[in-house]
Amino acid sequence: MSQLTLSDLNAAAKPDFVASLANVVEYSPWIAEAIDHQRPFEGINALLDAIKAAIRSAEPDVQLALIRAHPDFANEIRRAAGLTARSKSEPNSAGLDRLSEAEHAAFERANEAYREKFGMPYIVCACRHTRDSMRRDFETRLKNIAKTETRRALEEIFRIAALRLDQLVAADDKLKVHGRLSTLVLDNHNGKPAPGIAVELVELARLGESRVIARAVTNHDGRTDAPLIGGRPVPIGRYELRFSVGQYFAERGVLTSDPPFLDEIPVRFAISEAEGRYHVPLLVTPWSYSTYRGSEPSE
Amino acid sequence: MSQLTLSDLNAAAKPDFVASLANVVEYSPWIAEAIDHQRPFEGINALLDAIKAAIRSAEPDVQLALIRAHPDFANEIRRAAGLTARSKSEPNSAGLDRLSEAEHAAFERANEAYREKFGMPYIVCACRHTRDSMRRDFETRLKNIAKTETRRALEEIFRIAALRLDQLVAADDKLKVHGRLSTLVLDNHNGKPAPGIAVELVELARLGESRVIARAVTNHDGRTDAPLIGGRPVPIGRYELRFSVGQYFAERGVLTSDPPFLDEIPVRFAISEAEGRYHVPLLVTPWSYSTYRGSEPSE
Amino acid sequence: MSQLTLSDLNAAAKPDFVASLANVVEYSPWIAEAIDHQRPFEGINALLDAIKAAIRSAEPDVQLALIRAHPDFANEIRRAAGLTARSKSEPNSAGLDRLSEAEHAAFERANEAYREKFGMPYIVCACRHTRDSMRRDFETRLKNIAKTETRRALEEIFRIAALRLDQLVAADDKLKVHGRLSTLVLDNHNGKPAPGIAVELVELARLGESRVIARAVTNHDGRTDAPLIGGRPVPIGRYELRFSVGQYFAERGVLTSDPPFLDEIPVRFAISEAEGRYHVPLLVTPWSYSTYRGSEPSE
Amino acid sequence: MSQLTLSDLNAAAKPDFVASLANVVEYSPWIAEAIDHQRPFEGINALLDAIKAAIRSAEPDVQLALIRAHPDFANEIRRAAGLTARSKSEPNSAGLDRLSEAEHAAFERANEAYREKFGMPYIVCACRHTRDSMRRDFETRLKNIAKTETRRALEEIFRIAALRLDQLVAADDKLKVHGRLSTLVLDNHNGKPAPGIAVELVELARLGESRVIARAVTNHDGRTDAPLIGGRPVPIGRYELRFSVGQYFAERGVLTSDPPFLDEIPVRFAISEAEGRYHVPLLVTPWSYSTYRGSEPSE
Repeated sequence: MSQLTLSDLNAAAKPDFVASLANVVEYSPWIAEAIDHQRPFEGINALLDAIKAAIRSAEPDVQLALIRAHPDFANEIRRAAGLTARSKSEPNSAGLDRLSEAEHAAFERANEAYREKFGMPYIVCACRHTRDSMRRDFETRLKNIAKTETRRALEEIFRIAALRLDQLVAADDKLKVHGRLSTLVLDNHNGKPAPGIAVELVELARLGESRVIARAVTNHDGRTDAPLIGGRPVPIGRYELRFSVGQYFAERGVLTSDPPFLDEIPVRFAISEAEGRYHVPLLVTPWSYSTYRGSEPSE
Repeated sequence: MSQLTLSDLNAAAKPDFVASLANVVEYSPWIAEAIDHQRPFEGINALLDAIKAAIRSAEPDVQLALIRAHPDFANEIRRAAGLTARSKSEPNSAGLDRLSEAEHAAFERANEAYREKFGMPYIVCACRHTRDSMRRDFETRLKNIAKTETRRALEEIFRIAALRLDQLVAADDKLKVHGRLSTLVLDNHNGKPAPGIAVELVELARLGESRVIARAVTNHDGRTDAPLIGGRPVPIGRYELRFSVGQYFAERGVLTSDPPFLDEIPVRFAISEAEGRYHVPLLVTPWSYSTYRGSEPSE
Repeated sequence: MSQLTLSDLNAAAKPDFVASLANVVEYSPWIAEAIDHQRPFEGINALLDAIKAAIRSAEPDVQLALIRAHPDFANEIRRAAGLTARSKSEPNSAGLDRLSEAEHAAFERANEAYREKFGMPYIVCACRHTRDSMRRDFETRLKNIAKTETRRALEEIFRIAALRLDQLVAADDKLKVHGRLSTLVLDNHNGKPAPGIAVELVELARLGESRVIARAVTNHDGRTDAPLIGGRPVPIGRYELRFSVGQYFAERGVLTSDPPFLDEIPVRFAISEAEGRYHVPLLVTPWSYSTYRGSEPSE
Repeated sequence: MSQLTLSDLNAAAKPDFVASLANVVEYSPWIAEAIDHQRPFEGINALLDAIKAAIRSAEPDVQLALIRAHPDFANEIRRAAGLTARSKSEPNSAGLDRLSEAEHAAFERANEAYREKFGMPYIVCACRHTRDSMRRDFETRLKNIAKTETRRALEEIFRIAALRLDQLVAADDKLKVHGRLSTLVLDNHNGKPAPGIAVELVELARLGESRVIARAVTNHDGRTDAPLIGGRPVPIGRYELRFSVGQYFAERGVLTSDPPFLDEIPVRFAISEAEGRYHVPLLVTPWSYSTYRGSEPSE
């Protein structure tokens, strides 16, 4: 999908402006109409703020209609195969298109319970979640009172809108909607970055199956060519990085023991801020290692 | 079983001496008879050396008879429920009495193949092995020529004899038959040993099921009251230590993230020397940890 | 000096009991007389508590006389060369017999100021201090009001008494008067304790000269044969440990750079509890190191 | 000094080309003349290679004249105050304009000895050295035979030429003449980069005085805004980084001990490759720290 520029949007005729933003918030041209007179927007953050303000100042029944206009979450899963390219990219990160029968049924029941209690669909910005964190989010929210839950639903709608806007519009400023997960392997035995180390990123699941969600090999910088997760939110949840260091040292003829004291090293950690920058390095020798929440230079 | 002292053994009448040592090497009173005239022994190491020398200088057919006098390994597994207390303690460490049907069948087939090739039972000091390392030992040895394998069988008989002697006879010197696996959790956030941390030791299995083989909780010294494995060989193999640090920091009111960046920390390593001293500490904060092959003071 | 046993003390005739304890608190037989009837003491801690209680319950003028019975601190320094063996060992740790002329003069002036304000000598358990911490103690206390300072003087007298009692009387229980400073060098490049590493312990001084107060070489355990400081308080203050790791790796033929990235490694830290157990290990490769407040197993 | 572009040089009339490069190698227009016909150069590396090839293929007496055309090193020091801007920047890094009288005299004697033995001035690319490494370079080279030393002198001339060329000419490719020394402080107590930490870089000197050569404060990224040394060679030698972590934790209200266990942390290391990228991070809590030869992402 080619991007619009903010200048284009600012300069567009009103009908084009409204059409362009039609899908940022599900089926709701009235939002774009409401903010049309505020053009030109200084930046994409200003545009998003205007959208949020328009929704927040709408009458309660309009807000509720907006919430109800969102597809049923379970419904959306059911249609996962036939989704448009745009929507498809969103729920994927929580692996919703790869749910087992049992998981699928559990999500359907959950939605049912939610709709029964609140009279609206359960809305969540799915790409900020793993299955575990979504279950937790759901369980927490099901206990809310209706008023709180309307506010929460709008917050999720704002998050979804921000992600769509980020994809749709190019501007000088950036929306803070992306997180980042990166790693680095430093060979402290040799005083250099460690190239050629196979790295797996596994999403851990309390219920259901853990699954490998990224594979990479470290380059001459000891880093992976691209971040393990980047350009999108890092789904909240628990992960395990697995580093194949036994093979690395064996290939370099470093004498260790047989079997080697360290071979595949698992590093288990949790992501709590989907928009955070997470750097999880490994400092390693054949007999020791360290890991920590690190920091890569800001770009 | 109450222990004899080396002085008792040195002073005993010959028939008593022979009877006392009868079971150190399976059904072979001739060994004790052959070394009787070397009494008194200066220490238990000298006694073991005499036993080994007597076996090494025996005629090949006598050696082979000694090897064949050992119970079939598969047979021994089959009788696992009915073993004497002494023997029972030995194969347990490799979990032979808890083998699945499939593992059991695999061991039987292996024994059969070995006996067919070499005309003698496969002898191994089982308590120095996990299932993984035993399989590897078996596969390596099956490729040997007969002469090499006779030597290997005697080596294993010596190891078994050393362990039995260590249990049977109290002396001033010690046989080097025991290894040790210990841990320590240091709270680098607070500058103190970390008490109350649940620790699990898991034996990893390439085939078959990994299983928890020790559980402990750290004391005020950050250590476990007893070593995770001590007073016996540490079975060669791959292990995972699991430390519940999330709960530890939560109970102390340390502010972290939700979910906590570090919760259960797995540390995976291999044991290659069954008689070695392994110390695997964890230095930890809510955001970082280090582990390494460490060292506890020699006693 | 040969030690008395607590049983001997408990069983002694009253004059002998009083004579034995005469010098635990400077020139004050009345204290032993006051607690004589409490014999037998269950342990050395009970004996010390009795001494402290006797002093605390004495009339203010008796307490003041006790304090004044203590030699002038500056005076004591002056006599440093001629001290009895017992007393000599005490102030040495703060290096009072090796003061420069300028430091000497500064201490004299300080004492003078203190005596002028409070009408009593400045009493401090010198072996718990470095020059830096003693200066700080002095400066803090000079600001106190007289009542507070009388209490502080008694506390110091109790500390001195405890150390003397510990040297004088052997009992089943121990007074908590000793600290400990130990180290360990682990070679993470090789997975073993590092033997043969020269270690220097330097007392840092804000004013005046820093000086080496202990030298040792690591043994096959990576430790020093004796703790760097043990069997006495660890003087409060700032220290630097210096580890000669460049030579260690060079001797083992480990290829590094020229000059080696790491050569002499300084580790700077402070002691705040004179009776604490401080373990300061170094985990090292030619390209990395870690240090931390560690923990040796309790005895 | 404004830069030429490589295209300009390639397109210039011959006299201008020769004039532009006149000072890349001291007083030697014949070099530019010799390579004029090779224009256009594809990049700055190709240009430097051509210069080096022209010098290498010159007759021995021409090479010797070139070497002798270089100012006497001691002479250059003497003129340090009156140097042109360009030259001034070069020897400064070794602190030659801040030498003590004694150091100055030592350098003069050294030059005298060198000139006497080899009949030419001692040439060294001073900005790649500290006083210590220059003394070592001098002592090593004084033992060479004349032929070796002629080669070494040319190597140093090439290094000086490369640095001058890098300053003089802008091109798409870069000469590898710059090193980099950077740091990072990660607060492992809090899981974040540590801002506001004062950092000092000290050049250690075996003889003469150690001196602070850079001061910086970490920013919100835990890094210094600019590398401690960048855009020039990192002088070969021994250094100490000093991190004021005691104040950092105190300002954040982290409870430690009094005095704090860790306050100013010294990290001592050596630079062996003047054109290398050195990253020396500090991972720190109030009770522990790690350092290592790290790695920043390549630009």
